[in-house]
Amino acid sequence: MMRALLLGAALLASVATAAHARAQGGAPVERWGTLELALAGPRDGNPFIEVALSATFRQGARTVLVDGFYDGEGQYKLRFMPDTVGQWEYQTHSNRAALDGQRGTFTVVAAGAGNHGPVRVKGVHHFAYADGTPFWQVGTTSYGWTHQPPAVERQTLATLAGAPFNKLRMLVFPNHDVKHQPPRFPFAGTPPKEWDFTRFDPAFFRHLEQRVGELRALGIEADVILFHPYDKGYWGFDQMPAEVNERYLRYVVARLAAYRNVWWSIANEFDYLVKKGMPDWDRYFEIVQARDPYQHLRSIHNAMVLYNHTKPWVTHVSVQSGAIAQDFERAVLLRDVYMKPVVYDEVKYEGNIERRWGQLSAQEMVLRFWMGAIAGTYVGHSEIFKDPDDMSWLGKGGTLRGASPPRLAFFRQVLAGSPAEGLEPIDKWQEHPFAGKPGHYYLGYFGRQAPASWPFVLAKPGLADGMRFKAEVLDTWNMTVTPVPGAFEIRKRDNYSFADKDGRSIALPARPYMALRITRLP
Amino acid sequence: MMRALLLGAALLASVATAAHARAQGGAPVERWGTLELALAGPRDGNPFIEVALSATFRQGARTVLVDGFYDGEGQYKLRFMPDTVGQWEYQTHSNRAALDGQRGTFTVVAAGAGNHGPVRVKGVHHFAYADGTPFWQVGTTSYGWTHQPPAVERQTLATLAGAPFNKLRMLVFPNHDVKHQPPRFPFAGTPPKEWDFTRFDPAFFRHLEQRVGELRALGIEADVILFHPYDKGYWGFDQMPAEVNERYLRYVVARLAAYRNVWWSIANEFDYLVKKGMPDWDRYFEIVQARDPYQHLRSIHNAMVLYNHTKPWVTHVSVQSGAIAQDFERAVLLRDVYMKPVVYDEVKYEGNIERRWGQLSAQEMVLRFWMGAIAGTYVGHSEIFKDPDDMSWLGKGGTLRGASPPRLAFFRQVLAGSPAEGLEPIDKWQEHPFAGKPGHYYLGYFGRQAPASWPFVLAKPGLADGMRFKAEVLDTWNMTVTPVPGAFEIRKRDNYSFADKDGRSIALPARPYMALRITRLP
Repeated sequence: MMRALLLGAALLASVATAAHARAQGGAPVERWGTLELALAGPRDGNPFIEVALSATFRQGARTVLVDGFYDGEGQYKLRFMPDTVGQWEYQTHSNRAALDGQRGTFTVVAAGAGNHGPVRVKGVHHFAYADGTPFWQVGTTSYGWTHQPPAVERQTLATLAGAPFNKLRMLVFPNHDVKHQPPRFPFAGTPPKEWDFTRFDPAFFRHLEQRVGELRALGIEADVILFHPYDKGYWGFDQMPAEVNERYLRYVVARLAAYRNVWWSIANEFDYLVKKGMPDWDRYFEIVQARDPYQHLRSIHNAMVLYNHTKPWVTHVSVQSGAIAQDFERAVLLRDVYMKPVVYDEVKYEGNIERRWGQLSAQEMVLRFWMGAIAGTYVGHSEIFKDPDDMSWLGKGGTLRGASPPRLAFFRQVLAGSPAEGLEPIDKWQEHPFAGKPGHYYLGYFGRQAPASWPFVLAKPGLADGMRFKAEVLDTWNMTVTPVPGAFEIRKRDNYSFADKDGRSIALPARPYMALRITRLP
Repeated sequence: MMRALLLGAALLASVATAAHARAQGGAPVERWGTLELALAGPRDGNPFIEVALSATFRQGARTVLVDGFYDGEGQYKLRFMPDTVGQWEYQTHSNRAALDGQRGTFTVVAAGAGNHGPVRVKGVHHFAYADGTPFWQVGTTSYGWTHQPPAVERQTLATLAGAPFNKLRMLVFPNHDVKHQPPRFPFAGTPPKEWDFTRFDPAFFRHLEQRVGELRALGIEADVILFHPYDKGYWGFDQMPAEVNERYLRYVVARLAAYRNVWWSIANEFDYLVKKGMPDWDRYFEIVQARDPYQHLRSIHNAMVLYNHTKPWVTHVSVQSGAIAQDFERAVLLRDVYMKPVVYDEVKYEGNIERRWGQLSAQEMVLRFWMGAIAGTYVGHSEIFKDPDDMSWLGKGGTLRGASPPRLAFFRQVLAGSPAEGLEPIDKWQEHPFAGKPGHYYLGYFGRQAPASWPFVLAKPGLADGMRFKAEVLDTWNMTVTPVPGAFEIRKRDNYSFADKDGRSIALPARPYMALRITRLP
């Protein structure tokens, strides 16, 4: 009863075609691609509630248990993201005979170009793809982009294709939008709030998956926000019964976990969802942790109250703070607290609206990315400009109007040239504006200061007399890299530092937003 | 076999004289004072190891189990800090007949002047004494003050009697001091490191208790540091076997817990004690938590690595950071993370030494207390000035030479006039330099800025049109309070703030370190 299922051109590259049950596999799936099995099964009763479906995927001694889901119209599906190449086999399990005991094999081939696998925590404070490629998070947010008319959604994708962002925060549930009703809803029923919470609307989720798949094709991680407070009871998705919340989580995970670019954000501004308490959030984390066979990254985003990110199911820190990324000494603080990668996912937005969270200049937006980087952390962008049609990148996507994105592209390029271990603060309590890898690589950032020169002095760790360095002056706003002629040889200066042996300085243009890149010479 | 024991004049006020066993009590003990019972018992073998002693103290249905300890020379002691007035009774328990089954009763009377009980956490982020009196922490550190010649220790006490500090961080174990050998050691044996770790030296602990009692008489909390890394293996108290560490903790708690002014600091710069790992620190917390009948405040102090202060046995946050209290927006961050009172116990020191942690100007030291307060947190002082005899307040006590203490006295006076609920940041992400109680009391601090005026604008929470306020200009450095003539009546200004209805400003002297105190008028 199994057959190939094609989800549309954008996903073709990574969806395998599975042969009939018990047959040897059809077209191979790539490593970290998505194998999808489709099975016909019962339509009677309520399959969302009554039919259990899972499958065991096996390679040698290793097994991975994966939940299936009902996709409507008598169709059941199972998705699997293999993380090793070679032959795999599977067997289905169900409380319905038509879906139980189906078997098959398939072949996993090497990942294609641009497929580095899912993003994982690397070391303590950084990220890397599963194949080891560093992941330098340069995020943005467009909450409701998948709830827009098709033309807007296509425009958003086109914008992203030319933008510097490699992670996008996005809501599953629609916002309450007074001007436009979303085209799809996650449950069967009638808007605004006559929902049959026992029946998902598969079309809603197929659309969501299409968009997540398109982000994947663009090399963009989808930070999928599972709950949010912007419904305000209008649709009621922020106030569903506890068992509906839990079934919803299992359904989303069953559908989306096989997309390698998924991150789970349990909620946006969780503390504004006042009907849910800390035990609820803990429980949601536990469900996602238990049901996701691939252990995608998990975090939760706050308004005024921080979730306790030391809890074991939190893989990285996702924080909103309007003040935290204003300087590197401040930004480093949560890194030390949590001992996990830290992403400042909301640091106010570039824009010109009256709300004070939407008034950052482009210069301030870019500064926060740099300050975050010097602190060994990561930052998220978004923008909101006054618009007669109530369009904003933050709310709906479309186009970017701000001046920060090109500078963030330059910023990302600089990160990409940094050591794979990630940028580590060099001397975190001493107003020392450098991060990098002691003895090898130093990235310094002067922010709003506008020094006319910088004496060549580096903090002691990793240094020894006679080491030689080259330097480049980076204008982070004008996006230029200017090599400093010659080399700098260092001598110990005092208990804390080494300096150029001849006491030389580097001339700077006395403008703000300047950076220095200092690299060890052989 | 019980008899009164007098510990010296300084402690007389709070040590009760207990009558003979089974007799009705003698002189009453005051609430939160210390009842001490002394029992004669076996001298043979090793009483520190072999003799178990405890007592149950009972009032009505309530019982408190208290550990006793061997004080040498065949003397055993039990100390109890009653927290309610009225009649109490006790019964001893021991594996030695001479110490077992002793009973008696005693009377607890109201606390005397200056005795407010132990300090507890109040609400989420503040402290109060057990009787409800707010405790506005203004701390200092003198690590080795109890390991000095008597004249120096007396001088330290005299200095403290005239200083603004209400908490003192102090080590139990001596430092390694190259110039002076400490007069006493905690174990029997021969310095530098031939110790019999199975036998404490009671004289060492009696001296420590005397000093803790003298601090109590001065109204100063003793933040007792149980381990520290400044031994560096010289005496070896930083590298004792695990069972010795645990026995030591039980012994210290049995001796000191009945002093109401004790706080437990499990370690100073715990992460520099490289032979102990996180599970060890967790275990030490658990021992102290389990053995202390009064649940004194517990924390642990770091160097470069933060302990996870979200753990349940941590009552408040004790942090060293050279950068954290430089501004209030930074200082507030850990408050939100931990949801416990935050004390920045080490923010570098006032002084003039070459080490960069000992070079703060008095102005910078005082600034950090103010910035901490505006962030709703608490700060600790110390000082270290160059000295031919290697004397410093930080290391040994004696006298204070810095210029910050009088300003910290002024600071403490301002705190003491603030609302009992504690200072709460008013608008924490918006560079709004005010803490207080919305609608009632605002304390603003401009730090290094030197504004010539301040437009009367307050953040919205708690405000309504027509409210009236008086204002005072505080010069935190010159320690003056200047009332601003007249009253300010407010009107809503925008979505975020209220302002003086006539748009008035308050004139300021364009000097740094100015503060404003704004108080609601009836």
